[in-house]
Amino acid sequence: MSIRVPEGFRLGGLHCGLKRNKSREDLSLIVSDLPAAAAGVYTENLVFAAPVALDRSRTPGSGFRAVAINSGNANACTGERGLNDAREMARLAAAACGAGAEQALVLSTGIIGEFLPIEKIRAGLTTIAGQLGRDEASLVAAARGMMTTDTVHKLAGRSLSLAGRSIQIAGMCKGAAMIAPRMGTMLGLILTDAALTPAAAQRALSAVIDDTFNCISIDGHMSTNDTVLLMANGAAGGPPLEGADFAAFQTALHEVCGELARAIPADGEGAKHLVSIEVTGCATRDAARKIARTVADSALVKTAIAGADPNWGRIVSAAGYAGIPFDPAKVELHINGFPLYREAAPTTFDAAAVSASIRDHRDTQIVLNFSEGRERIHFWTTDLTEEYVRLNADYHT
Amino acid sequence: MSIRVPEGFRLGGLHCGLKRNKSREDLSLIVSDLPAAAAGVYTENLVFAAPVALDRSRTPGSGFRAVAINSGNANACTGERGLNDAREMARLAAAACGAGAEQALVLSTGIIGEFLPIEKIRAGLTTIAGQLGRDEASLVAAARGMMTTDTVHKLAGRSLSLAGRSIQIAGMCKGAAMIAPRMGTMLGLILTDAALTPAAAQRALSAVIDDTFNCISIDGHMSTNDTVLLMANGAAGGPPLEGADFAAFQTALHEVCGELARAIPADGEGAKHLVSIEVTGCATRDAARKIARTVADSALVKTAIAGADPNWGRIVSAAGYAGIPFDPAKVELHINGFPLYREAAPTTFDAAAVSASIRDHRDTQIVLNFSEGRERIHFWTTDLTEEYVRLNADYHT
Repeated sequence: MSIRVPEGFRLGGLHCGLKRNKSREDLSLIVSDLPAAAAGVYTENLVFAAPVALDRSRTPGSGFRAVAINSGNANACTGERGLNDAREMARLAAAACGAGAEQALVLSTGIIGEFLPIEKIRAGLTTIAGQLGRDEASLVAAARGMMTTDTVHKLAGRSLSLAGRSIQIAGMCKGAAMIAPRMGTMLGLILTDAALTPAAAQRALSAVIDDTFNCISIDGHMSTNDTVLLMANGAAGGPPLEGADFAAFQTALHEVCGELARAIPADGEGAKHLVSIEVTGCATRDAARKIARTVADSALVKTAIAGADPNWGRIVSAAGYAGIPFDPAKVELHINGFPLYREAAPTTFDAAAVSASIRDHRDTQIVLNFSEGRERIHFWTTDLTEEYVRLNADYHT
Repeated sequence: MSIRVPEGFRLGGLHCGLKRNKSREDLSLIVSDLPAAAAGVYTENLVFAAPVALDRSRTPGSGFRAVAINSGNANACTGERGLNDAREMARLAAAACGAGAEQALVLSTGIIGEFLPIEKIRAGLTTIAGQLGRDEASLVAAARGMMTTDTVHKLAGRSLSLAGRSIQIAGMCKGAAMIAPRMGTMLGLILTDAALTPAAAQRALSAVIDDTFNCISIDGHMSTNDTVLLMANGAAGGPPLEGADFAAFQTALHEVCGELARAIPADGEGAKHLVSIEVTGCATRDAARKIARTVADSALVKTAIAGADPNWGRIVSAAGYAGIPFDPAKVELHINGFPLYREAAPTTFDAAAVSASIRDHRDTQIVLNFSEGRERIHFWTTDLTEEYVRLNADYHT
């Protein structure tokens, strides 16, 4: 499905020298011809990167004209010099479209603890500024500029008609490891030509994050750089969205963020399975999410799925240490539709058939019901394979 | 170093048919000729196994004559029938030494969710009862009967002289995965001929667990069966230990438990490195433990060590999501004595030299100092290798 760039945005991406492989983009620039409202959600990690510190201090806000994104270097754990580099990167991005130093935001991802090669970024931004486009190829180039170990770029979009005006939403994200976001995910950027006040943009983004980017995990390791930004430039015309129009926009934003979020574990490092974990019958939504996350982060659950092993005891025992009270006698577990456990005892099931259903499908569906309440969550993760270990033992040196 | 069996204990182990491999012991029996005081610490997992339920209801207490241990089957998630099987296993162990049904405890480990083959256990206990010994070979056979994927049996002991009497402590444990104990570890059994009241036995055991078995993790997955038992039969003579004698006993117990606890990650599934994590300068001991555990459980930290990669950003970022407040600007990190990070910025270090020091030694030492207080913890874990994934993808099917 083709994704349209929202009105009033131009963008592009190229290789500026941060990655060794010259065929891979490592720098993106997104320019809004009109000043845009921007909102952000960020990592809860105490050790947060310089671009997170900068963007957090500027959002929610209005008047934004540019976002610069680099991969290959996270600008994290880089102290005062890192903060100055992030400010300089924002200034360069703003200057590229004739805006003031404060009118830009920055996103960085890659290795932690190395200083940003700011000269490469300066030269790269100057080059991209002369190549910005409004077509899908430009959108793809920008999305590729934020990739690290991702094997595919990740885009999602929606078109909707509100109050007689055509509205576009286009989103991009990246991530394949160090994925256990609590507030945003590795990096995400959503563009829209809808008119939104900064407060409304923040409200819409914060509302959808909990059910989308906060419901995925690859390895339980929360990044220093997790950020999702929403930019709304109002180029579609009309006053800021309110009431039913705002609700319709938020629904579309939810769909875009959900699609982008699922694309991350679907591209998880070394993953052979995309694992869907539905936790139902909980007293609260947070309880359901905590159980789902604990199951998702268990290396023993993940390796069992990699091995197509219906070793359901690992799933039930992971739920048991999530810190959420429940009665084990009321738990029911299904894998790919097969009932495996209920009334605190194993059911009689065809282990070979369950194993074959895991082995033969890329998607594995785990459903855990607790009969403690009416809240539920849908969480997404990956299996854990030898390839993940190989990739992460070799990433740096 | 040879380990002496404390006075008044006889023990043994054999293969009774729970494991497929007939050369591997899967059942152990420990008999105390005198009624012993017993104390236990158990898993905090809500989904706890039948033997945990039984032992928890009986300890701390006195009058115990036997402990039966099986591997190859955890008797977990087995409902009412599992509880009856655990009671029957205890009754059979007690009967084997002419004691009453309530005078025994049981430990089980292995696959979750299968019923215990109680007839094999009945026949096995009858056979062991005729072969019990007081020599080191009998101690080793008993320690081997609790092994699952362990590659070595794990024993530790101390001799001490208290109030003119010779006192022995001998301990055994098992575990190589599903290791993230919060109260005990997979299985541990400590025997002593010291005289202790049940309350004192419980106090001594609870006091040392926090710094020993609660300071190890292999994969962050808390088991349904974690149990450490202490049996004190008083065969060394004299009244129950008090005051300075009790303190000296507790120190020796701490050493035995520490040695046993470290033996678990040292034998971690597929591990190439035993990783020591010292977290210092924290406001509380619990804060230090929580940070150490979060670093220990990060798949990205573990794979970096497997790859001999001094990717310290993964360590600092893991500390950042442990949920403990600290000032990133005051953090200092050393790996194998090399300073890698301080004052919120990377130090200049010889990455090749650090990498070589990780690659060339089985032990990796991580020291994180927070300058927030005076509390510290010493935690032990493993790296994460392709072999761990292979073992756990193939364990069941």
